[in-house]
Amino acid sequence: MERCEIVLSGFGGQGIVLGGIILAEAAAIYDDINATHNQSYGPEARGGASKSEVIISKEVIHFPEIEYPDVLVALTQEAANKFAPTVKEQGVLIVDSSVKINDQIKDKVKLYSLPITEMAVKVAGSEIVTNMVTLGALVAITKVVSREALEKAMFSRIPKGTEEVNMKALAQGFALAEHLV
Amino acid sequence: MERCEIVLSGFGGQGIVLGGIILAEAAAIYDDINATHNQSYGPEARGGASKSEVIISKEVIHFPEIEYPDVLVALTQEAANKFAPTVKEQGVLIVDSSVKINDQIKDKVKLYSLPITEMAVKVAGSEIVTNMVTLGALVAITKVVSREALEKAMFSRIPKGTEEVNMKALAQGFALAEHLV
Repeated sequence: MERCEIVLSGFGGQGIVLGGIILAEAAAIYDDINATHNQSYGPEARGGASKSEVIISKEVIHFPEIEYPDVLVALTQEAANKFAPTVKEQGVLIVDSSVKINDQIKDKVKLYSLPITEMAVKVAGSEIVTNMVTLGALVAITKVVSREALEKAMFSRIPKGTEEVNMKALAQGFALAEHLV
Repeated sequence: MERCEIVLSGFGGQGIVLGGIILAEAAAIYDDINATHNQSYGPEARGGASKSEVIISKEVIHFPEIEYPDVLVALTQEAANKFAPTVKEQGVLIVDSSVKINDQIKDKVKLYSLPITEMAVKVAGSEIVTNMVTLGALVAITKVVSREALEKAMFSRIPKGTEEVNMKALAQGFALAEHLV
């Protein structure tokens, strides 16, 4: 794909913003293609809703806005209700297992329902590594960046001392999804 | 000001991306106004050039692109050469003391030349807190967000154990600039 538009959505504590940055940097710094990361905050920011937009493109990105994403991750029901209807026809929709998606949307997209937050809690004892499980699954399914680039970008952004738990979360994300594609 | 467009530019190790995120979150989460943060990476990302765009606005932000910033921070000569000509007439240009600005630009903007990286090195022994010194100076000069909001946003984003050095860096940033406005 020449240009891939990706939206990560969920709530604040899941590391959505950092997840978007790591994905964009994996593309631009380590895979040497163009990328933008965009984060918009409105009055709902305080409530914890979070959305992170990443565009990855072989061409220079003149128009960094996403209207209809090729790939959407929705980690909460609220995020899915709001954004799932925007996914492109035959686009990829990745949701947490706790999220319900109606048949109308199911017919339109490629749906992957995965126990993302459950796996994060299993790996780290909390939802703090949800972003890394998400990125592992997303890259296993979409292959928008290489696994090597994703790992390098992750290591350059996470706090020292958290390498092992984040690496494990990323690997579990891959494991959740790689047999599905 | 109804809408303030801010560009932070420099190189990778100065924490430009995190600086932009903290500024946007200070506005949206703690000062309860709207904000966007945008980060574009091109082939130059590998070389370390870094640019972070923040828009803070009382109105909903429909068009999150910056063409001519109201406020530009340029921490390197390269960043200043590239972006200083884009600052709005009578806009604010904040540069590191090591950066030279020509007379033509000086006549057009409000220039603040501050020992930002020198202060970061003094506080932390490295340039790692350059972003916090920068944010302190920027908010002292522009007052785009409240100091309280900036501090809260910083605390929610920095790694545990770095609170003291980052708080000191922020305070030194304020001290560099607050007597100038």
